[in-house]
Amino acid sequence: MLSQKFVMRLSCKNRPGIVAAVSGKLFEAGFNILDSQQFDDTETDKFFVRIAVECEIPFTRAEMAGLMEPLVQEFDMELDVRDTAVRQRVAILASKADHCLADLLYRWRSGDLDIDVVAVISNHPRDVYPNLNLSGVTFHHMPMAEGGKADQEARILALLKDVDAELVVLARYMQILSDDMAGKLAGRCINIHHSFLPGFKGARPYHQAHERGVKLIGATAHYVTADLDEGPIIEQDVERISHRHAPDELVRKGRDIERRVLARAVRYHVEGRVLRNGSKTVVFPE
Amino acid sequence: MLSQKFVMRLSCKNRPGIVAAVSGKLFEAGFNILDSQQFDDTETDKFFVRIAVECEIPFTRAEMAGLMEPLVQEFDMELDVRDTAVRQRVAILASKADHCLADLLYRWRSGDLDIDVVAVISNHPRDVYPNLNLSGVTFHHMPMAEGGKADQEARILALLKDVDAELVVLARYMQILSDDMAGKLAGRCINIHHSFLPGFKGARPYHQAHERGVKLIGATAHYVTADLDEGPIIEQDVERISHRHAPDELVRKGRDIERRVLARAVRYHVEGRVLRNGSKTVVFPE
Amino acid sequence: MLSQKFVMRLSCKNRPGIVAAVSGKLFEAGFNILDSQQFDDTETDKFFVRIAVECEIPFTRAEMAGLMEPLVQEFDMELDVRDTAVRQRVAILASKADHCLADLLYRWRSGDLDIDVVAVISNHPRDVYPNLNLSGVTFHHMPMAEGGKADQEARILALLKDVDAELVVLARYMQILSDDMAGKLAGRCINIHHSFLPGFKGARPYHQAHERGVKLIGATAHYVTADLDEGPIIEQDVERISHRHAPDELVRKGRDIERRVLARAVRYHVEGRVLRNGSKTVVFPE
Amino acid sequence: MLSQKFVMRLSCKNRPGIVAAVSGKLFEAGFNILDSQQFDDTETDKFFVRIAVECEIPFTRAEMAGLMEPLVQEFDMELDVRDTAVRQRVAILASKADHCLADLLYRWRSGDLDIDVVAVISNHPRDVYPNLNLSGVTFHHMPMAEGGKADQEARILALLKDVDAELVVLARYMQILSDDMAGKLAGRCINIHHSFLPGFKGARPYHQAHERGVKLIGATAHYVTADLDEGPIIEQDVERISHRHAPDELVRKGRDIERRVLARAVRYHVEGRVLRNGSKTVVFPE
Repeated sequence: MLSQKFVMRLSCKNRPGIVAAVSGKLFEAGFNILDSQQFDDTETDKFFVRIAVECEIPFTRAEMAGLMEPLVQEFDMELDVRDTAVRQRVAILASKADHCLADLLYRWRSGDLDIDVVAVISNHPRDVYPNLNLSGVTFHHMPMAEGGKADQEARILALLKDVDAELVVLARYMQILSDDMAGKLAGRCINIHHSFLPGFKGARPYHQAHERGVKLIGATAHYVTADLDEGPIIEQDVERISHRHAPDELVRKGRDIERRVLARAVRYHVEGRVLRNGSKTVVFPE
Repeated sequence: MLSQKFVMRLSCKNRPGIVAAVSGKLFEAGFNILDSQQFDDTETDKFFVRIAVECEIPFTRAEMAGLMEPLVQEFDMELDVRDTAVRQRVAILASKADHCLADLLYRWRSGDLDIDVVAVISNHPRDVYPNLNLSGVTFHHMPMAEGGKADQEARILALLKDVDAELVVLARYMQILSDDMAGKLAGRCINIHHSFLPGFKGARPYHQAHERGVKLIGATAHYVTADLDEGPIIEQDVERISHRHAPDELVRKGRDIERRVLARAVRYHVEGRVLRNGSKTVVFPE
Repeated sequence: MLSQKFVMRLSCKNRPGIVAAVSGKLFEAGFNILDSQQFDDTETDKFFVRIAVECEIPFTRAEMAGLMEPLVQEFDMELDVRDTAVRQRVAILASKADHCLADLLYRWRSGDLDIDVVAVISNHPRDVYPNLNLSGVTFHHMPMAEGGKADQEARILALLKDVDAELVVLARYMQILSDDMAGKLAGRCINIHHSFLPGFKGARPYHQAHERGVKLIGATAHYVTADLDEGPIIEQDVERISHRHAPDELVRKGRDIERRVLARAVRYHVEGRVLRNGSKTVVFPE
Repeated sequence: MLSQKFVMRLSCKNRPGIVAAVSGKLFEAGFNILDSQQFDDTETDKFFVRIAVECEIPFTRAEMAGLMEPLVQEFDMELDVRDTAVRQRVAILASKADHCLADLLYRWRSGDLDIDVVAVISNHPRDVYPNLNLSGVTFHHMPMAEGGKADQEARILALLKDVDAELVVLARYMQILSDDMAGKLAGRCINIHHSFLPGFKGARPYHQAHERGVKLIGATAHYVTADLDEGPIIEQDVERISHRHAPDELVRKGRDIERRVLARAVRYHVEGRVLRNGSKTVVFPE
C-alpha cells in the first residue's frame, strides 16, 4: 500500500510541551515524522514548526485536521494541513513583460513546480503573448476598463473564486492592488519586485540602481499587503553588475533574477515552507 | 545617419606596438573605439584584444577585414570581425530534457539573446516536446538510426551547412560527438555539462555529487573538442545544496543552473567576448 | 535564575516514535525545546536530529546524558550532549602559511568563535609567525625530526591528550596524517583543502585550476579520514575568477575562501550542527 | 635588467583618436602595454582607460607624467600615474570594532595587500586593542576631546600630512567626517558601511535588516563625500541569512562581509582600478 504524506504548519505562543504533545499525538495515530523543523522567535515568544508526516492508513486532510483539533484548542494554534498528493491551484496575473509568466508555465508543464495553473489573467489581450505556449491553460483578458480599478478587481476576485485559486502569483503584474483586494488575498498572493528591497522602491528600480552605481542588483518575492513594497519577504537574490551595464542591460539581467526568485518563492509556499511572522516570514529550508 | 558597429577579436604573439598600430589604423579610417579590453598571457606570450568600434561611414564586414589585412599580415594575427547588426545563425541540438532548449527559444523570441535560431535538431521526434512553443523554427528529427552514428552525424553536418549555422549549441544533447564532427565544429560548438567540471565527469553527475556529499553543485559550458568534458570552459556557476536534497532534487535544481550558464556562454560567444587560448578561454566581461 | 542550555545530537536507525519519545522525556524533565531540526535519510533509513533545550533547574551534562540513557538503549542511539556554556577545547596545527591560523586566533580572541584555543602546534619554529599575535596561547614546535613521522605524530597525540583537546583543526597543516593518527582523531579533526573537492585533488590545486581554465575556485573543509581528500565534507565555498588571474593571484584569492570556509566549519562543529552520515555529513543550518 | 611597470588612469571627454594617440606615444617611448581596459560612458560622453605598461629603460614616475603631458593638454585629460614598485602610504582610522583593522593589518604584514600602513589612528586608546598585533605600526590616539570635532579633525589632518598618507581607510571608524574634512580627502578616503546601500542607511543597519526580514545582508565600500552614505560605491557583497539569525548574529556575520569588501576596495584603489565617474565609479576588474 502506498503511503500518504501530509505537511503541517503550526504556530502559536511558545510554551513548553508543544513538540511533545504534537509528536505524541502523531505517533499514537500511526504517523511517522519524515521531517521536522522548528523555530522559536525569542523576540515575540512565538513558536513555529513545519512537520512532514506519512502513514499507511487511509486518511483525509480533514481527518488530519480533526486529529490535531484538541491541540489546536489547547495551545491556541494556527494550523495548516496540506496533502502533498494534492496540487495547489494557482492563478497567475501578468502584464506585458512575460518572462516570469513564461517561466512559471514551463515549470508547471514540465513538472518542475508541483502546481495546477488554473488561470492566467492579464490586463493585456492574448495576442500580446506570441512567445508563450498557452495551450492547456485558460487565458483571461481583464483590462482596466471604463469601470475602473474597483470594477476590474471585482471581476478578478470573482474569477479567482470561480476557479478556486488557492495561490495568486503576480508575475510582473504592473497594477497596484487596492487595499481591499490585498486584504482579501492576504497570505496567499506573492509578488515579485524588481529590486533588492528595501533598496529602490517605487518605479524603474533598475534605472535607480544604475543611477546610484551599485555593484549588485537583485529581486524580491514577497507576500502582497496593503503597504506597497513592504510585504513579508519570502526570497531574494542578487547578481553582480559593473559600470558597463546600461539600464536596459540591467533590465535584461534582472529578468533572470526575477524569474528564479519568484519560482523559488512559489515553490517554498506550495511546499508549506513559509510561515508568516508578523511583517516577516519564517522559511524552513529545503 | 545611423552609426555602424563592429566587434573585432584579435590574437597573436605578443610584441610592442600592436595596440598603437591597430588603434592608429582605426582612427585614420574614421572609427571611434567604443570599448577595448586587452589581455597578455605572460605564460604563453600571447596577446588578445576585443575592440568594439563604430563609424558613420557605410562599411561592410569585408571592408573592415580588408582594412585590418595589412596588420594581420604584419603581426601574424588571427582576426574575427563581426557586424553587430547581423545576428548569428544558431542551430540547437537537443535530446529529451528540454529545459535548456525551452530557455534558449524563449530568449531568442523575446529578444533577450540577439540570435537567429535557424534549426532545432533532436534525436527524438517532435511530439516529445509538448511543453515547447516551436512555432517559427524548423524542427528536424534526426534519430540514431540503422546507419549508426556516422550516418546521423553526416546528416546533421549537411543540415548545419544547408542552414548556414555559425554556432551549434548542444542544449543537453545526450549524444557524444565523434572526433570528426567535434573537429569540424571546433570553436563554434558549445556544450552544457551538468557538473562543475572537472568534478564529476561522466554519467549521472548529480548522483555522483549526492554520493560525495558536496555542498554546492554546478554546471559548465564549454567548447566541444574531441576530448569529452575537456573542452575550453566558457562559463560556470554553482548553487548551494544541503543534505536534504535527494539526487532528483539536485537534478531539478541543476536545470536552473544549466540553463543560465548555457545562456550566458551563448551570449558571450555571439557578442564576441570569448577567445580561445589553447585549452582555455579568454572571456572579456560585460 | 539563569537558564541552562544544552545541544543534543542524536542519530539512530529510523523508526516511528523517536521524536515523541525524546520530546516527551524532555518535557517531563522540565526542559523547553528551543530549536529542533530533524533529517531522515531515506536511502540509509537513518534518523538524525539536533535539539537545543533550556531549563531553569541546575543540571549537569552528565545528568543530561543520564536522562537520555533509557532512550539511547531503546533506540540504539548515538548521543552527543554539549553544555553550551562550556567552550570546546581546540588545538590548531599549522605550517608556514598562517592565514587560517591568524583568522582562527582572531576569531577566538574577539569572541567570534566560542572556543578555547588550548594549543598551537607547528612543524615550523615560532619565529616563522612574526605577523601573528600569539600571546595567551601555548605554541609548540613539533618538527618532523630524525625520529620521522611516527615519532612526531606520537608527540602531537600526547600533547593533544595533555591539553585535553576536543577538536583538532588542520589550518593549512601541510603534513599528511598517518592512517593511525587519522583514526585516533576520527570525527574531531577538521582539515581545510584548498580546492573545491572533488576537483583538483593532490598538490598545487590552484595551479591545476589555472591550467584547466575554470571560472570559479573554491575550498573545502572536511573531517580527516585515512582516505586523503575523501573525508566527509562539512562546508565549501567558491569565488569567481577570470583569465587574468595568474596562479599566485589564485593562491591569494584562495586564502580568503579557505579562511572563511574553515571558520564556518569550525563554528558548525562546535555548535553541534554537524552529524556524520557515513562518508557524508548532515549540517543543520544556522 | 629588470623591467619597470607603471599603471596609468586617464579620463577625459570622449572623442576619436585618444587610444591611438596614447598607445602611439607609449610605443614610441619604448613601452609595452601589458593590460588595457577602456570604458566609454555613453550617458555622459566621458572616456576612461586604465593602462598597465612596462619598459626596460630607467624611467621615473615624473618622467612618465612628463611624457604624457602633451596629450593631457590636447585632450584635457585627468591623468594619474603610479609606479607599481612604490607602495601606497595608507593611514587607517578605527574605533572600537577592530575586525576590519585586524584584517588590513594582517593583509599588509603578510604581503596580501601591497601597501605601507603608515599610521593607525583611533578615537580610543591603544589598550582597547589587545587582540591586535600593532608592532611595526605607529598608533595614534586621537580622542574627540574638549576642543570638539573641529579640533580632532585638525589634528588628524595634520598627522595625515606628516606621515604623507595617500589613502585614508575608515575601518569601521564610527565618527562622521565634517564636510570640510571629507572635502580635503576627496577621492582618497574609503569607508566601509555595514549595509548593502542604499538599503538601511543610518544607525544600526543589521537591526534594521533583521526588523525588515531581508534574506541577504551586505556591506558597501565607498569613497567618503560630504553626503553621508552617498559616496561613490567601489565594492559591495552580500551573504544569505535566515529567520534564525538574531541581530547580534547578523552583526557577527556582517563582520566577515565588511572586512572582505573593504579589503577588495582598498586593493582595487591601490592597483589603480577605480576611476571616479561623477557620483559613481568605474572599477576595471582583476
